[in-house]
Amino acid sequence: MTTIKRIVLASRPLAEPTPENFRIEDVELQEAEEGDVTVRVLYLSLDPYMRGRMSEAKSYAAPVPVDGIMEGETICEVVRSRHNDFAPGDIVRGRTGWCTGAVISGDMMRKVETHGAPITTAVGVLGMPGFTAWSGLKFIGKPKKGETVAVAAASGPVGSMVGQLAKLVGARAVGIAGGPDKCAFVKDELGFDAVVDHRSRDFASDLHAAAPNGIDIYFENVGGHVWDAVFPLLNQFARVPVCGLVAQYNGHDTSDADRLPAMMSAILRRSLLVRGFIQSEFAADHFNDFLDEIGPRVAAGEIRYREDIVDGLESAPEAFIGMLNGKNFGKLIVKVDGVV
Amino acid sequence: MTTIKRIVLASRPLAEPTPENFRIEDVELQEAEEGDVTVRVLYLSLDPYMRGRMSEAKSYAAPVPVDGIMEGETICEVVRSRHNDFAPGDIVRGRTGWCTGAVISGDMMRKVETHGAPITTAVGVLGMPGFTAWSGLKFIGKPKKGETVAVAAASGPVGSMVGQLAKLVGARAVGIAGGPDKCAFVKDELGFDAVVDHRSRDFASDLHAAAPNGIDIYFENVGGHVWDAVFPLLNQFARVPVCGLVAQYNGHDTSDADRLPAMMSAILRRSLLVRGFIQSEFAADHFNDFLDEIGPRVAAGEIRYREDIVDGLESAPEAFIGMLNGKNFGKLIVKVDGVV
Repeated sequence: MTTIKRIVLASRPLAEPTPENFRIEDVELQEAEEGDVTVRVLYLSLDPYMRGRMSEAKSYAAPVPVDGIMEGETICEVVRSRHNDFAPGDIVRGRTGWCTGAVISGDMMRKVETHGAPITTAVGVLGMPGFTAWSGLKFIGKPKKGETVAVAAASGPVGSMVGQLAKLVGARAVGIAGGPDKCAFVKDELGFDAVVDHRSRDFASDLHAAAPNGIDIYFENVGGHVWDAVFPLLNQFARVPVCGLVAQYNGHDTSDADRLPAMMSAILRRSLLVRGFIQSEFAADHFNDFLDEIGPRVAAGEIRYREDIVDGLESAPEAFIGMLNGKNFGKLIVKVDGVV
Repeated sequence: MTTIKRIVLASRPLAEPTPENFRIEDVELQEAEEGDVTVRVLYLSLDPYMRGRMSEAKSYAAPVPVDGIMEGETICEVVRSRHNDFAPGDIVRGRTGWCTGAVISGDMMRKVETHGAPITTAVGVLGMPGFTAWSGLKFIGKPKKGETVAVAAASGPVGSMVGQLAKLVGARAVGIAGGPDKCAFVKDELGFDAVVDHRSRDFASDLHAAAPNGIDIYFENVGGHVWDAVFPLLNQFARVPVCGLVAQYNGHDTSDADRLPAMMSAILRRSLLVRGFIQSEFAADHFNDFLDEIGPRVAAGEIRYREDIVDGLESAPEAFIGMLNGKNFGKLIVKVDGVV
C-alpha cells in the first residue's frame, strides 16, 4: 500500500478562512482498477473559486463536504496506468484535489499541452484562468479597437491575460492592482496602457484619469470598492463579464446604503450588459481553439505571465488564505513533488 | 396666427410628481418653413420613461428643461404640409410633446401604419411599447419552448406583449399585475399561463407556485419588491432584459440592507445575464420587421391589448401621476382633439 498526504476541509469558515479550517492527513491510496491511472502530483493550483466550495451556499458547484478533500486542479505525472490513453511518464492535469498523489479514472485526466511553455502554465495562463479571460472577452466583453478595457487583479492570471488580449485587438488596457510592485509589473512587463493602485486614497480619481474616455468593458473578478470606483465610469453599452468577486467571498463587501437601485438604474440608463459566467460553459467547445491561438504566443514570450510558486502541500492553506487578501503576486501554485 | 395649448415642466419633482410640477399654457404656433408640416394632435401617449426626463439625473436622453414642453409621442393629422412626403389628412406620429398642435419638420414624423388596427395602436401595441417587448425578447431574452417567462405590469402595453410573444414560442408566461381586475384580464383575456397579484401578502410564495420550474427570463420593467421576489427564482443562465424600473423612479425603492452583494453573487453563481436597453437601439434596423410580423396579428385579434384613454390635454398630468402608481389599466393615452 502507498500512503499519500491530502488536505481536507476540517470546518467551514465563518468569514476569512483560518488554518484551523484545514487538516492535513495521511491516507492509503486505493487499489487501481481497469481504466485508472496512478499519478504523483507535481503542482497544485490555488484559485479564488475554492473559497466558494468551502461554504454551504448554493452555487454552480456542490460544496466540499466537511472532512472531504479540498477540491482543486493539479498537474501530475503518471506513474502506473491501466488506461489505454496514458503511459508512465505522461504529464497530465485533472481535479485530484489537494493531495500528493491519487488513483483516478484516466477519463478524468487530460494530457498537458503547452506548445513548449512550462507545464505549470497548464493551470495558469494556458489553463483555466487564461481561458476564463479569453472566453469572457470573446463571448461577452467583445472588445473593439479604441475601446477601454479595465480589469482588477491585473497582475494575476486572469487579469494579466485580459489586458494583453485587449491590447491585441487595439483596445486601451487599464489595470488595477494592489501596491507599487504589482503596478510596475502590470505597466512595464505586461504592457498595459495604464495601471491604478486600488490601495491609494485617490483610487477613484486615479482610475478616472486612467480611463479618460470611460470604460467600455470591465472584466469583474473582485467586486467591493473596486466595483464602486468602476461603476460610475461605465460607458453606454458597456459590458461587464463577471467571473469572480474575491472581495466579497469572505463577507466583507457591504455598504451602509443599498446600492442595488443605483446599479439597476445605471443598467437601464446606460444599457449595460452584466453577465456572470464560469469558463466551463465555453470550455467543451472552445478550449482547444484557445490553446491553439494562445499557446504559441505564450511559448514565444509574446504573452507574458507571472507565477508565484510556494513549496510543499502543507503550505497550501496559508498560501490560499493569503491569496484571498491579495498577498500572492502572479498565479499561485503549490509545488508538491508527490511520491506514490 | 394659431394658438395651441401645451404642457410644460413647471418644476422638477422631488419624489412623486405633483400637479404643481406641470403648467398648461397657450402659445402661438410658429410659421411653417419649407419641409415643415402643421399638425393637429389626436392622441398623446403617456409612458413611464417620461418620469426620467423630469429629473436632472444623467440618462440616455437629456432632461426636459424647466419651462420646456414635456416630451412625448403623439398621433396627429396633417393639416398643412410643406414637405413632399405628406399631404393634409395624413395620419402621422412623432415627438411633438404634450400639446394640441405643432409645426414640425416632416423629417421628424412617420406615417402611421397599423395594418388595419386602430391608429391608437401606433403608440401602444404596435408602437414603442410593443416594440420594446418584441425587441427585448428577440435580442436579449431569447425565450425557448418550455422556458418560463415572467413579466410585471402584465396588463400594460409592454407586459401584455411580452407574455403573448412568449406563448407564441411555446414558453410558459407568468404575469404579475396589481389587483384582481388586472389579474383576471391577464389570465382570461391575454391567455397567460399564470398570473400573480403583487399586492398580495403571499406574493413571493404565489410567484414561486406560478413558476414551479423557476424563471428563465424576467422582463424587468418595474424593479422594487417585484424584483426581490423574482430574484431568488431566476434559473441558471436566466436572462433579464431591463427596460424600466417604475417602482424606483420616484425614489421609493430602497432597502435597509445593501442588496448589491447578493445580486452580484447570484449573477456570478447562476451565470445570469442582466442587460439594460432602450428600444431605440434596435428600432432603426428592426421596427419594420416588427410591424410586418405583429401588425396583422393585432389587426386580426390574435394579439390582444387594452387601452386606457383619458380625455383632454389638461387631463395628462393627473393621468401621468396615476400611471406611476399603477392606476391606469392598459396603455395610457390622452385623447386631445387639437385644432390648428
